[in-house]
Amino acid sequence: MSLRARDRETLEARLGYVFRDPALLQRALTHSSAIAPSRRTAESYQRFEFLGDRVLGLVVAHMLSERLPTANEGELSRTLNSLVRKETCAKVARKLGIGSFVRLGESEARTGGANKDAILGDVCEAVIGAIYADGGLDPAYTFVSRMFGDNLDVAQARRADSKTTLQEWAQAQALEPPTYVEIARSGPDHAPVFTISVSVLGYDAITASGPSKRLAEHQAAERFLLREGVWKSET
Amino acid sequence: MSLRARDRETLEARLGYVFRDPALLQRALTHSSAIAPSRRTAESYQRFEFLGDRVLGLVVAHMLSERLPTANEGELSRTLNSLVRKETCAKVARKLGIGSFVRLGESEARTGGANKDAILGDVCEAVIGAIYADGGLDPAYTFVSRMFGDNLDVAQARRADSKTTLQEWAQAQALEPPTYVEIARSGPDHAPVFTISVSVLGYDAITASGPSKRLAEHQAAERFLLREGVWKSET
Repeated sequence: MSLRARDRETLEARLGYVFRDPALLQRALTHSSAIAPSRRTAESYQRFEFLGDRVLGLVVAHMLSERLPTANEGELSRTLNSLVRKETCAKVARKLGIGSFVRLGESEARTGGANKDAILGDVCEAVIGAIYADGGLDPAYTFVSRMFGDNLDVAQARRADSKTTLQEWAQAQALEPPTYVEIARSGPDHAPVFTISVSVLGYDAITASGPSKRLAEHQAAERFLLREGVWKSET
Repeated sequence: MSLRARDRETLEARLGYVFRDPALLQRALTHSSAIAPSRRTAESYQRFEFLGDRVLGLVVAHMLSERLPTANEGELSRTLNSLVRKETCAKVARKLGIGSFVRLGESEARTGGANKDAILGDVCEAVIGAIYADGGLDPAYTFVSRMFGDNLDVAQARRADSKTTLQEWAQAQALEPPTYVEIARSGPDHAPVFTISVSVLGYDAITASGPSKRLAEHQAAERFLLREGVWKSET
């Protein structure tokens, strides 16, 4: 059973991408349970999922490089890992209503496979892989930035809000509010770099740098929250 | 100290890529030890390494998708992981003679940093990231396929040679030679799929499928070797 033309058009409209080769979209929606074992590799979404996983990684890395211009490698990696998790991919698949187009084996369909995070997350990656295979990086980039952009905004919002979170955390533990001290300023006048130390009584101070005091303070607060496990490496 | 114009031209000729913005190449060659702590994130190769790691992953995934048309997702992932290891990246950096262009702090330079696998591997990834940031995916793809292509060929050669390896392994243990049996044939006449089972007396049989008997046999032998730990998930 292949995707009907009307269903395909509906889904392509939601994806914002029209496939040159619709067979690729069909394959991206086909779970291995729908296919006889000997043809699974060729006809299920497995290989597209493998490719899409790397397309997603690159696109998100590219977006983070632009949107977090002062984050170091560790911070970029943590944010990336939180954004490309299967749960996030499954959420994107749900937003697109992909579940009703997924092709499953009988038993998988009966046990609600079309609503399982694991399958929806895989299908989302496979669709990204299929768009890349069909049209190259540009349409894949457009799709990912449209669908994952909200989550990036959440990551950024959280980042911007780190000072507030740290203050609330201190308050909740009946500690004095955190204090921020500028401990260094370097670089030329047109491109200064500020280094800020944040301390909370009873905890080791932690420092961070940035192109403005505000950004350095936010980053120091974020590092503090990550170190103390208040924030996990996820959105 | 920045890269002299003549050195830059030498290196660009080896990379096969001329930078629009040479400052990006400079940064890709700058180890954090050469930079004051407050400016490390902005001026060392860290952030390019983060980006280049994902560019490399995607390009190799794309190449493997084309070159191993019958491999399943697990096999693709194992081959990819073996190809993008730091040691492979360091080897590529050595082939290009990048070490002599790397900018290091005094102590790192004294202890031979320009010849350390960890640093050379990072720099190789950073250069890939810088090419991508400067010119997009196409020149990065060209560079990676030129420099990592040999290793892919090794991976393919190993794959093609799996039947021989399995035979030698059986012989070395004084076992009967492996036997291959066609257990299924499916698909239309113009695109048949063969499923082959390989057995060695005393071991569980293992099956694999492919568009020809030969490829299915090779894949079955490879799976056998991986399962028994004769082959590790690496080249």
